[in-house]
Amino acid sequence: MICELITVGTEIILGNIVDTHSQYMSDKLASYGINVYHHVSVGDNHKRLKDTFSTALNRSDIVILSGGLGPTTDDITLECVCDVLGLSCYYDKQALAEIENHHARLNRVMAENNKKQAFVPHGCTLFLNKHGTAPGIKIEQDGKTVLILPGPPRELRPMFEEYVKPLLEVLTEKTLVSKTLRVYGVGESSVEMKLSDIVTQTNPTVALYAKDVEVHIRVTELVERGSTGTQKTTDTIENIIKILGDTVYTCDDESLESVVVSLLAQKRLKIAVAESCTGGLLASKITSVSGSSAVFDCGIVSYSNEIKERVLGVSKSSLEQYGAVSEQVAKEMAIGVLNLAQADIGVSITGIAGPDGGTEEKPVGTVFIGIATKSGDTVVNRYLFGYNRINEREHIRLHSVMRALNEVRLTATKLR
Amino acid sequence: MICELITVGTEIILGNIVDTHSQYMSDKLASYGINVYHHVSVGDNHKRLKDTFSTALNRSDIVILSGGLGPTTDDITLECVCDVLGLSCYYDKQALAEIENHHARLNRVMAENNKKQAFVPHGCTLFLNKHGTAPGIKIEQDGKTVLILPGPPRELRPMFEEYVKPLLEVLTEKTLVSKTLRVYGVGESSVEMKLSDIVTQTNPTVALYAKDVEVHIRVTELVERGSTGTQKTTDTIENIIKILGDTVYTCDDESLESVVVSLLAQKRLKIAVAESCTGGLLASKITSVSGSSAVFDCGIVSYSNEIKERVLGVSKSSLEQYGAVSEQVAKEMAIGVLNLAQADIGVSITGIAGPDGGTEEKPVGTVFIGIATKSGDTVVNRYLFGYNRINEREHIRLHSVMRALNEVRLTATKLR
Repeated sequence: MICELITVGTEIILGNIVDTHSQYMSDKLASYGINVYHHVSVGDNHKRLKDTFSTALNRSDIVILSGGLGPTTDDITLECVCDVLGLSCYYDKQALAEIENHHARLNRVMAENNKKQAFVPHGCTLFLNKHGTAPGIKIEQDGKTVLILPGPPRELRPMFEEYVKPLLEVLTEKTLVSKTLRVYGVGESSVEMKLSDIVTQTNPTVALYAKDVEVHIRVTELVERGSTGTQKTTDTIENIIKILGDTVYTCDDESLESVVVSLLAQKRLKIAVAESCTGGLLASKITSVSGSSAVFDCGIVSYSNEIKERVLGVSKSSLEQYGAVSEQVAKEMAIGVLNLAQADIGVSITGIAGPDGGTEEKPVGTVFIGIATKSGDTVVNRYLFGYNRINEREHIRLHSVMRALNEVRLTATKLR
Repeated sequence: MICELITVGTEIILGNIVDTHSQYMSDKLASYGINVYHHVSVGDNHKRLKDTFSTALNRSDIVILSGGLGPTTDDITLECVCDVLGLSCYYDKQALAEIENHHARLNRVMAENNKKQAFVPHGCTLFLNKHGTAPGIKIEQDGKTVLILPGPPRELRPMFEEYVKPLLEVLTEKTLVSKTLRVYGVGESSVEMKLSDIVTQTNPTVALYAKDVEVHIRVTELVERGSTGTQKTTDTIENIIKILGDTVYTCDDESLESVVVSLLAQKRLKIAVAESCTGGLLASKITSVSGSSAVFDCGIVSYSNEIKERVLGVSKSSLEQYGAVSEQVAKEMAIGVLNLAQADIGVSITGIAGPDGGTEEKPVGTVFIGIATKSGDTVVNRYLFGYNRINEREHIRLHSVMRALNEVRLTATKLR
């Protein structure tokens, strides 16, 4: 089964926006075993849009067009599709009512031209748009399926999930079941090498995605409609965890900060952080998780030595003898914030985020991460992040924070 | 002049990656007045790639292909182009030397198949790839120009800037001069309305880009090759500033945090921040700017009431009487951190980021921002962010931080 994707809009071909629909939809279609051979973007131009659609229709079983369903005169997608297919339109009462409802919900007056969005081809099926006014449209003709979806991602994506996926399930008689594992602390090529036997398997498929600082592993099984997945998915996941160990921090596609906050909450542990080079980024990550107030009371951004001394109680002699970026200062910062906040775990980060401040002994990217626990244990690790990356400063800061979160995860796992 | 963009790669049509090249290149091409009517993505398949290229060549003056220049057997872009154009290839000595140099610089051994990347068509022009091995290729035939560029963005973009833009200047005999203004505190539709006469002008063009929390205005003038822009650009920018006033915070496309750090440094002012609901995000934004250590010593993330009292000196009675999210507590937090850090400006943020914690009187999104200065002035403003957005919590936190930064900017402008 072959599907072609057409994204319509002058704003795309003028380069005002990136077409993310093609990636989003292709990814789903591929999972159902549907072949996508072409993505085409075309502007709001009658001749070029009709030509593009005709070509796509000739060489595919399914054509999905997105964009150009708006109420203004330059929204011509449906008109062009109807021209090519020889269809005439009518005002659909229910669609019109939905459009009126949408305006009512937002306390807005419906403009006259919005009615155009209820002018749809005879014999089509409509998809309700819960996040906008234009309904999605399904047309079936001569064994081919044409779908027209609204352009805004916040409208298209929920509609795709709710209406298009079930349709793909009917067309292919299959359902997709997928789980995403996240891995921290191992590079993509290393994960790829370790999983070399697994990534070549076919059902479930195992796909690796290298993210900024971690690797995501998606296990996707195509199963008979109605099934919720088989033992093969469970086995594959177990197999991956056996190989990668505790570098896998979630099987539920959660962020590392979410996992850490849940773990701390479950163990009733409080965390406090003292940051120098990351300047609040660690605290900000933790507090980005809703519910973090149960585990987090206090973060200190001690950018200057004076604040390290005065607020965290780092000793002047340590700062003078070892420098602010040192194992000793990281240790005192972690203990200092642990005591200040009366927490269970104190974390410190002190390093050189650059671009200036590096020395031969401590080059830019040198970072010390300290973890102190209420029981009196303190561990400090030294890292070198950076590798001359683009956006080196941001890279070093982000890596430092993720590494610290991961150390908290591993530490908290062992506590209580 | 018409240009068509073809992005090649099975990873694109499988939905593994988003095609960002088409947007990037279309944007540049549009600025030169070159029309782009189609973007096409196609996989690494001989027949489909050749068909796609032939179609594009027939209907355009310039065809730019990207991707599929790698050393492996599934990299077939050049081969397909040569087939269609009837060109034969040879090993280019200089290209081979560059590929060898690239490996030497990275201390890597060159694989035998990398040689393939120096096997290029007779009569073509090569673009040096400073960030990878595959050179870019320019072919001219029958008055048409075909460009083949490497797929990885970190290779394509510098090559486009260095080699393709000058080529477009030669083809169009024009040069682009552009300046980007950034505006905070006015919504896009409001900016659009205020600038309605200006956004319709043609040279320089004025384009608005709605970002997460601000609006960018790009003024682009197409001038004769060799010119660095005319009075028309200067006049347009002055005009915009006259209309939008001090909501324009930069004409040099800098971030708000960068502008604030530069302003504070220039005025030799130190800032300290006390954050509740934003949990370190404000400190993190400030310290993301390299050189921020000259203006920033201390940030306190006082998530709990106890830390507000104990570290910042907020009075217990204020917390009890008004609650942590109140004008009074915001005031005491700002003064507290100002004194603790002995800074010139103390900033506080306390609010309800949600999803829980809202009341009728103080719904989710209620945020108080306090600014205290050394001279003894303290101003607290109350805001309501959120509007039931997707990612509401992140939205509220980000808006709070940007608003605080903007208040610091306006306050610091008046100081000294």
